[in-house]
Amino acid sequence: MEAKENCKSSAAYPMNSGDGPYSYAKTSTFQKTVIHFTKELVQKEVVEKLDIGFSSTASPPTIFSIADLGCSVGPNTFSAVESIIEAVELKLQSQGLTSKIPEFQVLFNDHASNDFNMLFKSLPSNRRYYAAGVPGSFYGRLFPEASLHFIHSSFALHWLSRVPKAVTDKSSPAWNKGRVYYSNSRDEVIEAYKAQYQKDMEDFLQARAKEVVCGGFMVFIIMGIANGIHPSEAGGIVSEETVDSFNIPIYMTTPHEFETAVKRNGCFSVERMEVLPHEKVNGVANNDHQIITYPMRSALTGLIKQEIGEEIVDELFDLYLKKVEEVYLSSILDSGKSLSFLVVLKRKASH
Amino acid sequence: MEAKENCKSSAAYPMNSGDGPYSYAKTSTFQKTVIHFTKELVQKEVVEKLDIGFSSTASPPTIFSIADLGCSVGPNTFSAVESIIEAVELKLQSQGLTSKIPEFQVLFNDHASNDFNMLFKSLPSNRRYYAAGVPGSFYGRLFPEASLHFIHSSFALHWLSRVPKAVTDKSSPAWNKGRVYYSNSRDEVIEAYKAQYQKDMEDFLQARAKEVVCGGFMVFIIMGIANGIHPSEAGGIVSEETVDSFNIPIYMTTPHEFETAVKRNGCFSVERMEVLPHEKVNGVANNDHQIITYPMRSALTGLIKQEIGEEIVDELFDLYLKKVEEVYLSSILDSGKSLSFLVVLKRKASH
Repeated sequence: MEAKENCKSSAAYPMNSGDGPYSYAKTSTFQKTVIHFTKELVQKEVVEKLDIGFSSTASPPTIFSIADLGCSVGPNTFSAVESIIEAVELKLQSQGLTSKIPEFQVLFNDHASNDFNMLFKSLPSNRRYYAAGVPGSFYGRLFPEASLHFIHSSFALHWLSRVPKAVTDKSSPAWNKGRVYYSNSRDEVIEAYKAQYQKDMEDFLQARAKEVVCGGFMVFIIMGIANGIHPSEAGGIVSEETVDSFNIPIYMTTPHEFETAVKRNGCFSVERMEVLPHEKVNGVANNDHQIITYPMRSALTGLIKQEIGEEIVDELFDLYLKKVEEVYLSSILDSGKSLSFLVVLKRKASH
Repeated sequence: MEAKENCKSSAAYPMNSGDGPYSYAKTSTFQKTVIHFTKELVQKEVVEKLDIGFSSTASPPTIFSIADLGCSVGPNTFSAVESIIEAVELKLQSQGLTSKIPEFQVLFNDHASNDFNMLFKSLPSNRRYYAAGVPGSFYGRLFPEASLHFIHSSFALHWLSRVPKAVTDKSSPAWNKGRVYYSNSRDEVIEAYKAQYQKDMEDFLQARAKEVVCGGFMVFIIMGIANGIHPSEAGGIVSEETVDSFNIPIYMTTPHEFETAVKRNGCFSVERMEVLPHEKVNGVANNDHQIITYPMRSALTGLIKQEIGEEIVDELFDLYLKKVEEVYLSSILDSGKSLSFLVVLKRKASH
């Protein structure tokens, strides 16, 4: 099997669509556990800190808009938004503002190549919100100015907007020569990934700063590595030996690195930042290795189809994916240095 | 071939998805011609009459939201919304308010079973608006209260929400006995269709009255029949002899009947109502019969798959569809009594 040498496209890698055995919908138990665990944390933040006209003197908005970025096809996105809506209602009720509960609008975002057909078909029939799908990369603008009150994103921000250019540029020292030779330029490759991550986060936060109203909230669950760990210690960003020149546009950030990006942007205050307890999150993963690799598997399906071609036979594809999972992903996740963390950001008033 | 006797589902009949030879995207020339022709009419209305804070004293909204109901998969929906955006910009420019041009948000609506994946993939890359897909029947609420400035719908309002219950109810005089016997209860069947249309329009207008801001516009292009024509004269609503008991949830309204529904609702003023000139619209159709039946064909594909089953072989399906087209649809369209008309409605201030 021969993989294409470069990943040139600037990247839409939707979750594996449909509802087959490897589909995202059926393999996202890991995320589900995390979302369940973080639900309480998020609700506490909303009740304590959300204040978009929710004080008893000002009127709450008549429409409360929530976006889920990188929503995939469900069902996790549905429980995530449901718990946000509950929290907002809870807050209003606790303030005696039950009659002021707004209408909720939920904007489900993912790449245009995400299976929105499946997402729409599986929307809960008893939902208490107006649903819309918003196609496009969250590294650019997706929503009108000041139109969102709450943004949620879970296990999506480790996907870069693209494989860093330098990694696929033959004239660059960061060129990931791949395929046959083991790359001697590991540091340069990592630096290229790091730079791409910083650029992506800059774009991401700039777009969100425009879209979120003052006082609006953003809650992210991010898969990354511990502070102080060098990316190479956590399995390496690219494992050329095993996955040839196929570069995966994933970057595992540290909580510190993420915070730095937020401070550099300047429009959001960090309300909460918390590494999720290992036994609740990674603990689940360790018991069943496939629970971690499955979501990865479905996430990678779109990418691999795009890179290697749709004509590829299932068997070959399965073998390839297995290799990626075993060597690349497992090495990060088993290193004991990976973690998931929760971040709550609040849009500051514009100056 | 045996069709199921009843159409029980309350109905989502999306256009034929994908981009195959019978797909809606490739067979919507007829609509395209009409949209092109009506573009000028619509733009004139917007420039002359739209006044949602667009007078020089009030500020225009920062976000201008447009919905296209029954959008299918494109490309007609894209040119329709593009021409609305142009008109709004034109109006602001003509008032010296170029700096106040809002951000545009377009909400593409169709049934959840519409091929939104295809719609999203074919969104114009140079679009000047934020795009979202909104799944669901337009006979119910789709958007938050007072969240829309402009609604457009083209060749969608002849689809009923469902086949009228009475038509499939064995104990009703309107039961369309079908299949073997020619129905003697033609009038009752027509009345059942008429009643369903009135109920549907009531629901439709009630939902839209909530969603559209005061002063907001709705523009519809409707396929119907001339005032004073009895439905039976225009080919009949159901042609049991030829299509067995397969009941198509289509109703051809007259301009007068539509206007009556609008007046009964009471929330909208009729700003313009105009039968589209035969030579521009139906003229095109007469030259090439397939130009009319093709869009019908793709519209019906979803319905027939649902009614008869996906397992049906292509050949059988083709034959069946051809029959529906030839006998049922052509009889209406060739009767010389069918027409298309443009309606412009404006949301009155709430009392």
